[in-house]
Amino acid sequence: MRKLFVIGIGAGDPEQVTLQAVRAIRQVDVFFMIGKGDTKQELIGVREQILRAHADQPYRVVAIEDPPRDRAIAATGADAAYRDAVEAWHARRAELLADEFGRTDGVGAVLVWGDPSLYDSTLRLIERVPAHFEVEVIPGITSAQALAARHRIVLHEIGEPVHITTGRRLREDGVTQGVSTLVMLDGDCSFTQVPADGLHIWWAAYLGMPDEELIEGPLGEAGPRIVARRQELRAAKGWIMDIYLLRADG
Amino acid sequence: MRKLFVIGIGAGDPEQVTLQAVRAIRQVDVFFMIGKGDTKQELIGVREQILRAHADQPYRVVAIEDPPRDRAIAATGADAAYRDAVEAWHARRAELLADEFGRTDGVGAVLVWGDPSLYDSTLRLIERVPAHFEVEVIPGITSAQALAARHRIVLHEIGEPVHITTGRRLREDGVTQGVSTLVMLDGDCSFTQVPADGLHIWWAAYLGMPDEELIEGPLGEAGPRIVARRQELRAAKGWIMDIYLLRADG
Ligand SMILES: C[S@@+](CC[C@H](N)C(=O)[O-])C[C@H]1O[C@@H](n2cnc3c(N)ncnc32)[C@H](O)[C@@H]1O
Ligand SMILES: C[S@@+](CC[C@H](N)C(=O)[O-])C[C@H]1O[C@@H](n2cnc3c(N)ncnc32)[C@H](O)[C@@H]1O
Repeated sequence: MRKLFVIGIGAGDPEQVTLQAVRAIRQVDVFFMIGKGDTKQELIGVREQILRAHADQPYRVVAIEDPPRDRAIAATGADAAYRDAVEAWHARRAELLADEFGRTDGVGAVLVWGDPSLYDSTLRLIERVPAHFEVEVIPGITSAQALAARHRIVLHEIGEPVHITTGRRLREDGVTQGVSTLVMLDGDCSFTQVPADGLHIWWAAYLGMPDEELIEGPLGEAGPRIVARRQELRAAKGWIMDIYLLRADG
Repeated sequence: MRKLFVIGIGAGDPEQVTLQAVRAIRQVDVFFMIGKGDTKQELIGVREQILRAHADQPYRVVAIEDPPRDRAIAATGADAAYRDAVEAWHARRAELLADEFGRTDGVGAVLVWGDPSLYDSTLRLIERVPAHFEVEVIPGITSAQALAARHRIVLHEIGEPVHITTGRRLREDGVTQGVSTLVMLDGDCSFTQVPADGLHIWWAAYLGMPDEELIEGPLGEAGPRIVARRQELRAAKGWIMDIYLLRADG
């Protein structure tokens, strides 16, 4: 039975890779880089740095270009239409991966930003590939954990829940009393769309990378600072990746 | 400025420690083992294994015994009473840690099961210690990620939230439609207290350890199997540590 690793590589700091990931990387003959096309050069750089540091065997890198995205995916459509479009797109990507893996010998791997269990489509994609191979998933540090570590906080209050969600869903659902809310995938500063009163925000951009920035404070005061700083950083660098936690002021 | 590391060591598999954690471990003069008293020998074994494998410098281990727990903590009291009792208990533990760290020279560290940001009190404890030292937090793989990796699943549906909670709060709050619910700290099989209809469960015990067990299926069918198996395992071993994800059948 052939093997395919799905390896979480952490969310920016190449030192946040696990020993298990390093051991897996050393067994791999071919790394599939999925959708390399729309990934920022700096993020590709982190992957390459990890491979250079740890893969001491000969290996190949095969790029699997993303098929064109359905326009419905780009649009902030209705939930069902959005999901259908994403599903169809994943199916096309799965075919491409199956073709490439079929064409290659040996152990394969896909490196995943952060952890494969959080807002990543690799596992959904592989689920669609005809399963004549074994899949082993290796967890990686998520950006949520990196955020908490850098701010030195626990993600929730004692014994209470933490809700992990997206910017889009934060705008729809708001913040629930007594629940800490961790927001990822937010291109729109959706924290400006919830009533700031009594809320605290812990924000970070480019976690684990040289340009890492942290801002923290009561949402009413820190929110506008984040909006301004985010705009500056994005303009200077051309892209931004950020994440934050919202919770009632303790 | 003296330094104290808080190091996440993963949730059972010693290979799931990060390179950053290994590097930190190598700088440590004294490891504080907090509340060693009520920790299972096998969990202490994982910590010791990690230290033996990676700490190549001379180091000391200082046990900080937990002060007696207030009875209100053991009881499933009201939220406020429970929180107060936990707070008071943490304050007493913080004094003990401050005393010990004051008595010692060099770099200190606390090793944390899983990740320090999730249902762990180390950071709350350190927050209460007078801050004449620098704290650096190093994230670790959580049991939530280990659960997802072993079942090869993403924790949420496409673009939807995941709610991380406790057994107690699951019993109070139930499962929200359209939200995946990850339950930790559940000694009571609280999944039997929610309507099983249409729900799926992914369960695991002793993740990353030799006795690891996985069960998965529609809650109505898999739930009773988990209850029975959990009882057997717990009886055989004397203790159990388990975690699960609930979500509407896709
Ligand atoms: C497609 S998701 C991938 C998440 C990833 N699987 C993880 O475990 O962190 C991308 C989102 O993760 C967050 N993110 C990932 N890496 C980050 C970083 N280094 N700094 C800040 N946010 C980051 C941002 O919210 C971003 O929009
Ligand atoms: C006090 S919390 C600590 C969580 C830890 N900080 C983490 O990041 O996973 C303990 C709970 O974590 C879960 N847990 C931790 N390690 C586990 C393992 N190896 N297998 C199954 N569940 C585990 C269980 O739900 C347990 O009740």
